[in-house]
Amino acid sequence: MARIVMKFGGTSVADLDRIRNVARHVEREIKAGNEVAVVVSAMAGETNRLVALCRDASPLHDAREYDAIVSSGENVTSGLLAIVLQSMGIDARSWQGWQIKTRTDDAHGAARVNSIDADVLRERLAQGQVAVIAGFQGISSMNRITTLGRGGSDTTAVAMAAALKADRCDIYTDVDGVYTTDPRIVKSARRLPRVSHEEMLEMASLGAKVLHVRSVELAMVHEVPVLVCSSFADPALPPEGTLITAEMDDMEQETVTSIAYAKDEAQVTLRDVPDSPGVAYKVFGPLAEAGINVDMIVQNISDDGSTTDITFTIPEADYERALATLEAQRDKLGFGKIIGDRDVVKVSVIGIGMRSHAGVAATAFRALAERSINIRAITTSEIKISVLIDSAYTELAVRTLHSVYGLDKAAA
Amino acid sequence: MARIVMKFGGTSVADLDRIRNVARHVEREIKAGNEVAVVVSAMAGETNRLVALCRDASPLHDAREYDAIVSSGENVTSGLLAIVLQSMGIDARSWQGWQIKTRTDDAHGAARVNSIDADVLRERLAQGQVAVIAGFQGISSMNRITTLGRGGSDTTAVAMAAALKADRCDIYTDVDGVYTTDPRIVKSARRLPRVSHEEMLEMASLGAKVLHVRSVELAMVHEVPVLVCSSFADPALPPEGTLITAEMDDMEQETVTSIAYAKDEAQVTLRDVPDSPGVAYKVFGPLAEAGINVDMIVQNISDDGSTTDITFTIPEADYERALATLEAQRDKLGFGKIIGDRDVVKVSVIGIGMRSHAGVAATAFRALAERSINIRAITTSEIKISVLIDSAYTELAVRTLHSVYGLDKAAA
Repeated sequence: MARIVMKFGGTSVADLDRIRNVARHVEREIKAGNEVAVVVSAMAGETNRLVALCRDASPLHDAREYDAIVSSGENVTSGLLAIVLQSMGIDARSWQGWQIKTRTDDAHGAARVNSIDADVLRERLAQGQVAVIAGFQGISSMNRITTLGRGGSDTTAVAMAAALKADRCDIYTDVDGVYTTDPRIVKSARRLPRVSHEEMLEMASLGAKVLHVRSVELAMVHEVPVLVCSSFADPALPPEGTLITAEMDDMEQETVTSIAYAKDEAQVTLRDVPDSPGVAYKVFGPLAEAGINVDMIVQNISDDGSTTDITFTIPEADYERALATLEAQRDKLGFGKIIGDRDVVKVSVIGIGMRSHAGVAATAFRALAERSINIRAITTSEIKISVLIDSAYTELAVRTLHSVYGLDKAAA
Repeated sequence: MARIVMKFGGTSVADLDRIRNVARHVEREIKAGNEVAVVVSAMAGETNRLVALCRDASPLHDAREYDAIVSSGENVTSGLLAIVLQSMGIDARSWQGWQIKTRTDDAHGAARVNSIDADVLRERLAQGQVAVIAGFQGISSMNRITTLGRGGSDTTAVAMAAALKADRCDIYTDVDGVYTTDPRIVKSARRLPRVSHEEMLEMASLGAKVLHVRSVELAMVHEVPVLVCSSFADPALPPEGTLITAEMDDMEQETVTSIAYAKDEAQVTLRDVPDSPGVAYKVFGPLAEAGINVDMIVQNISDDGSTTDITFTIPEADYERALATLEAQRDKLGFGKIIGDRDVVKVSVIGIGMRSHAGVAATAFRALAERSINIRAITTSEIKISVLIDSAYTELAVRTLHSVYGLDKAAA
C-alpha cells in the first residue's frame, strides 16, 4: 500500500470523456490498495476564457479579483471528477483551496504555497476516500483566493505530496516522460527512466516544458519523488514514465543526461560602452527596475581597453521594453550603439555527471565548431553548459550534441 | 445616507456590457453617499451550462459536488463586477460565501441561510468600499459549499440586507416592478407602487415570477423593505419600481391588489373512492412519500354516501409520477378510475383588504360564471381566492377578474 498524489493537467481533463479516463487511472490505484489524492487543473481552454473575461473587464485588473475569477475553473473540474468517481462506486469528494487551508503568500497571480492543513485529508484517505483537489489555488493571509501562476497545479500536487508525506507524486501529462531531448527534433531521443531533482531543475529552467521550475524546486526541497507519465496510456496498466528523485549513490551517472533548448530569448549587445567601474550596474540596474530578467551576460574588452562591449540575453517578450529602457539611459551610459537580435536560441547540455568529468564543455565546443555553428555567448554551472547560437541552427545543434554525448537510442 | 443591498440577476449581468451597466447603477448610489453591498447571480446561461456538465458526468450526481460546481458561476460574476467598479475609480472587492461565513443548513441544492457574519462587511462599507457578493451560495456545517436553490440570489440579497440591517434591498430584474397582473395578458395592468410582504408572498406562491417565495418570506420575517426595479432603466436616475414593505396603517388598502395565474399545475381526480375514515391519508400519504406536493384538494360526497370523488392538483412536472404512484396503490385504495388533466390553470385574486371586505369571492364567482368559465376547484385564504379552470380560459379569466376588481389603469 502506498499513498499517492496524482495530478492531471488541462488536456487530461479537457472534457467529460477525458475526465472519465482520469477516473479509470484513479480506479487502478485504488484497486491496488493505495491511498489516492488527485490534483486537477481547469478543463483545457477554461482558464484562457476566464483570463479573457478579466482582461475585457479592465486591462489593468486587480490581481486579487483575477485570482477569485480564474480559480473557478479548477473548482468545476474537481467537482466533476468527484461525481464521475462516485458513479463508478469509488468514494470521493472535492476540496477547494480554502477547505484544506492551502496557505500562500500574498503574491496574487504567482503565489507560493507556505502550508497545507493535510490532517483532515489524511483521515479521509485512510478511510479509502479519494480526495479530489482543485489545483492552482490557495488562500492568502487575508483569506483571499490566490493562484500559483504558470504550472500552478504541478506545484499544488508536489506541495500536497509533501504535506501528505506521499510515497509518490505522479504528474500525468500529454507526454510519457522526460526525454534526452525534444523527440520532435531528434528522432532517436530516449525517454529517461530516472533523473535527479537537480538535473530536472536545470532542464526545466533551460527550456524543457514538461514540468515547471517551481514544482521541481519544491520536489527537491521536500525530497518528493515525482513520476512524469502520460494520461493517454492504458489506464489499466501501472504508469510508466520518468522518475525524478533525489540523487542516489547507486545511480549510474551518465556524464550528460539531456540536451535542452529555449527559443524565447533575445540577445542585446551594447557596443563601445565606456569601460569604467560600475558600468555593469548602470546597464543592469534600470533593466532590473523594469522587472526584466537578464540571463546570460558576456563582457568583452575592446582593443584599446577604454571601451567594452556588453552582450546579454533577456526573455523575448521583454525585447522592445528592454531596448526602450536602455535608449532612455543612453546619455548616462554613453554607449556607441545597441545591436539586438531575436533570432537566437539557447542550447544547453545537462548532466549531473559533469561534476566529475573533465572536458565535457570542450566536447560541445568542438562539435559545434565542426558544424560551423558560431557561439555568441556561453554560460556554465556545475551541471550544465549553455550556448547562445543563431536560431536557424537549433535543430542541427541539438542533434549534434545529442549524438556527440552518446544519447541516441543505439548508444543506450 | 442609507445602507443599501442591490441585487442583479442573470440577465442583468449577462455579458461585460451588462455588467458595466450594473456598475453605473452602483456608482449612482455611491455618489449619493450611500453604503452599498451588491449581490450578483451567474451570467445568464452559465448556471445551465454547469448544471448540464453535472448531469453529463452522472445523472445521479452528489448534491454536494453539484453545489461546489454550480456555485462557481457567481464567483466569476462577483470578481468581474469588482474589476469593472475599480476601473471606474470605485473601491470594491468581491466576497464568496465562505469568506463572509454565509452559514446554511445541510440541504444541498436548496439550503436555507442560518446566519451571515456581516461584521467585516459593515466595516468595509463604512470605509466606502463596495462589497460585491456572490449570490446563491453558502457553506454547510461541514464547511462544504451549498446553493440556495431557485431564486437563491434573491434570498442571499434579502438575508444580507437583514444581516447588515440595511435600509433597503433593491432587486434589479428585467421588469420594472410588480404589476396588478401579467401585462402580456392584460394591457391595462398597472404597476403597483407598494405591496405588503404578505400580499407579495401570496403572489409569489400563486405564480407571479418576479420574486421567489423564500426571499419574500425572509423579507417578511426580518421586515426588510424590498424594491423591485429594472436594471434596464437609466442608471443615472434613482430606481423606480414596487416597494414591498410591512403592512402599514396608513396604507390605502385596496380590496384586491392583483390577479396571479399559474399554468404549471395538473389536476388529478380519483372517482368512486370508498368513503371510509383515513381515505385522505391513504391517497396523500404515498404522494408525500414520493416527494410530490399536493396543492388544492376538493372532496365530494357521492349520491349514496358510500363512495367519494377526490380532486387535487400537483406540479405538472410530477404528473406522470403521481399517476404511477396512485396506480401502484389501486388495490389498497379501491378507487374506480383516475382522471387526469394537464390543461388547467390556477387563477388567484390577491388582496390584503379582503380581510375586511365581504363578498370578494362572490364577485369573482359571478364574473367567471357570466363568461361561462367553469370552476373545477376553489381554495381560499385570508387574503386570496384561487380557482382552478381550463387553461384555454386563462387570458379571459385574468382579464375579467382584473377588470371586475377595478384594477385597470383607467380605474387607478
